Amino acid sequence: MISHDTIVALATPSGAGAIAVIRVSGKEALSICSSIFKSVSAKNLLEQKSHTIHLGHIVDNKRVLDEVLVSIFKGTSSYTGEPTVEISCHGSTYIQQEIIQLLLRKGCRMAGAGEFTLRAFINGKLDLSQAEAVADLIASDSEASHQIAMQQMRGGFSNEIEKLREELMNFASLIELELDFAEEDVEFADRKQFKDLISRITNVLKRLIDSFAVGNVIKNGIPVAIVGEPNVGKSTLLNALLNEERAIVSDIAGTTRDTIEDEINIGGISFRFIDTAGIRDTKDVVESIGIQKTFEKIEQAQVVIYLVDSSQLTEDSVHELKTEIGKIKNKYPQKPLLIVANKVDKLDENQANYLTSEIGNILLLSAKQGIGVEELQSKLLEFVNTGALRNNETIVTNTRHYDSLLKALEEIQKVQYGIDNGLSGDLMAIDIRQALYHFGEITGEITNDDVLGNIFANFCIGK
Amino acid sequence: MISHDTIVALATPSGAGAIAVIRVSGKEALSICSSIFKSVSAKNLLEQKSHTIHLGHIVDNKRVLDEVLVSIFKGTSSYTGEPTVEISCHGSTYIQQEIIQLLLRKGCRMAGAGEFTLRAFINGKLDLSQAEAVADLIASDSEASHQIAMQQMRGGFSNEIEKLREELMNFASLIELELDFAEEDVEFADRKQFKDLISRITNVLKRLIDSFAVGNVIKNGIPVAIVGEPNVGKSTLLNALLNEERAIVSDIAGTTRDTIEDEINIGGISFRFIDTAGIRDTKDVVESIGIQKTFEKIEQAQVVIYLVDSSQLTEDSVHELKTEIGKIKNKYPQKPLLIVANKVDKLDENQANYLTSEIGNILLLSAKQGIGVEELQSKLLEFVNTGALRNNETIVTNTRHYDSLLKALEEIQKVQYGIDNGLSGDLMAIDIRQALYHFGEITGEITNDDVLGNIFANFCIGK
Repeated sequence: MISHDTIVALATPSGAGAIAVIRVSGKEALSICSSIFKSVSAKNLLEQKSHTIHLGHIVDNKRVLDEVLVSIFKGTSSYTGEPTVEISCHGSTYIQQEIIQLLLRKGCRMAGAGEFTLRAFINGKLDLSQAEAVADLIASDSEASHQIAMQQMRGGFSNEIEKLREELMNFASLIELELDFAEEDVEFADRKQFKDLISRITNVLKRLIDSFAVGNVIKNGIPVAIVGEPNVGKSTLLNALLNEERAIVSDIAGTTRDTIEDEINIGGISFRFIDTAGIRDTKDVVESIGIQKTFEKIEQAQVVIYLVDSSQLTEDSVHELKTEIGKIKNKYPQKPLLIVANKVDKLDENQANYLTSEIGNILLLSAKQGIGVEELQSKLLEFVNTGALRNNETIVTNTRHYDSLLKALEEIQKVQYGIDNGLSGDLMAIDIRQALYHFGEITGEITNDDVLGNIFANFCIGK
Repeated sequence: MISHDTIVALATPSGAGAIAVIRVSGKEALSICSSIFKSVSAKNLLEQKSHTIHLGHIVDNKRVLDEVLVSIFKGTSSYTGEPTVEISCHGSTYIQQEIIQLLLRKGCRMAGAGEFTLRAFINGKLDLSQAEAVADLIASDSEASHQIAMQQMRGGFSNEIEKLREELMNFASLIELELDFAEEDVEFADRKQFKDLISRITNVLKRLIDSFAVGNVIKNGIPVAIVGEPNVGKSTLLNALLNEERAIVSDIAGTTRDTIEDEINIGGISFRFIDTAGIRDTKDVVESIGIQKTFEKIEQAQVVIYLVDSSQLTEDSVHELKTEIGKIKNKYPQKPLLIVANKVDKLDENQANYLTSEIGNILLLSAKQGIGVEELQSKLLEFVNTGALRNNETIVTNTRHYDSLLKALEEIQKVQYGIDNGLSGDLMAIDIRQALYHFGEITGEITNDDVLGNIFANFCIGK
């Protein structure tokens, strides 16, 4: 799958806009582009400096296709690490197509998904985990997921892995050297230092593996179930939570995204409200259709909001409520549960006090009047362990990395066992090499076409 | 509406792609961008040459938003004619928003629709008809509409108008000069030459005004009605006509556009098939629901295809068909009518001959087997007078230009009348000035904020 021909693709989103960018990369990028480009000042593209922009026309024989700006990147100083030309043309789909077709006729090939980034990896501009971060970065839709992808793209994750890998490699060499002198019973590798390193590696691996839970949550959002009877104000609550984000988005015309109403960004973290479309229309009262459906929702969620209409509560229903809560807590003792009493604007102080004294940890809220909404937001955020994020620690979000880390840990634990039980160097050397292999998988020093194919297939075309 | 502050907008289509381009234009463009940009080689943006590209990070205080390429255009050498910076960032909607928000906080203002092109006009980079062509170019979806927009953007239309305007202006000055010497009864303006010019202008105006019919058709597509009973193969015919274009589009992943199935591009001209969705499901047999509905369709169309299933024709139905055709020709004697017999693959030679001899000008076709489809395509193209297009003549597509041309012609005809009837110079001078005014409206020499507002409101934001 690794080839060096000249590839072309649209790099900007498809559809009509003011401008579109067509990217051409490969040995022939400059010569092909200069053959269809007429500079307004009659300059020869091939003679221009790298990182310069030129105004002119794309011409197909005598037919002028468009007035464009052409950016040229010479030698290895481009994103892909090979000569690259970016054509910034008018954003009509027709023009985009015509220019790409012309480039294809002139000897370019349509780029595959992620092929520009694949070339950047092959040409050593990025390691594999950085390349993967590019796709994450493009897909990022919240501050937290963006921050993690950005950190990974800038090498944060790779650096941490790479440092450990180098230290371990050193010891591997020393231990393998001992094997050559096996008769003489020498120890080149300081066993105390080695033990320290292995325990350090174990700690880092465990921390990274643990971070995957947070990372996964940040990348994919936190599933939240809102349970409760109809008309307790679920959609009003969602709208109240959504409000702030909406206001920001609508400020910027032209960048308005299709709001996924069920996904709400709170403090940079995505919360996905499960089956809220259903919740809005549903008639599944806990009592009437049975607790089973509620349990299904809770099953999928990481946080549960139990919403009640406080204005409708009687002494009996408060009693019932306590039973329901008991059932849920009993079945899911580990699952964070927030009891939220909506429409508290309709209560007097006595009623509010009664609720608090009966249910205990209940959040008094009025979605309509915005009372308690901020408190709910911070309660939701408390369930996300953003400590690592705040401290700028490396967080693993990629399943492939997670798998390699687990395998590396397994091998490191074998090495640990070997040290503890005085195993011979030759046995330990094998385990160390295995651990090193799994480290290398992450950064791409160890790789194969299948793995690369899988990784880059998830990219969009043009990246 | 004309202001000189620094504006920002997303220039590429909204949505996620590999990259997005954010455009900043105005006096402060460079200083604002350099305040949020950290070059990887610690270069100061302000000290860099125009038309150069720089790799670095967009930073908000210490937070790194993205790794970007920044293109700078200094002085008046940009599209807008004022300092411009284009930030090429990763294509996530989140990143686009964050960067734009940061720029807004740093003192930029969100650009209005077409405001970049408005500035290009104000700064003399484009005249008004060229600016309008930019919007047409972005909207162009066929070879013909693209060619016209391209020609207009490159000044073809303006040049033609401008030349006439200058000649007319000369005569206007001479005639006005005569007025100063009215007592002396001199003629500075050669009446013979003047008459020639007026008749030349009349001819050009008439040609341009006539071209609007073609231009309009090319810009908006040619409405074609397919009439016929259900199951005669309308959708198969549409698919057969559509086939070629589809094949081209699907070649280029990433640029596939939402195909409007009812609009088919033949030889660079768009044909819009009226109410074909209706046609596909409809039960409006000419006989049963009445000829009225068919007439309504024909009314809206510029070309009519009358499609019959030749395999179902009997002597009786051929007779009926002739009556129907007669009715349509009677009611719409000017409307081009194509009688198409589908499913001719099921006929033997005798049957085919019988049809041709009975109906006369009938096109034998099999949509399924592709027989006769090309012939139909060339027949459809014959109805478009593409002569002007082939000869690279100026074609008017813009209603605003059309209106100004009509008004200019009216004034010129008054001048003509004045010459023919020996009217006095002072009366003619008024009509000439009026004609000049309408010429000036087209290129934007004469303009007002309302007109500008209307024109640029039709642009997308970011252009």
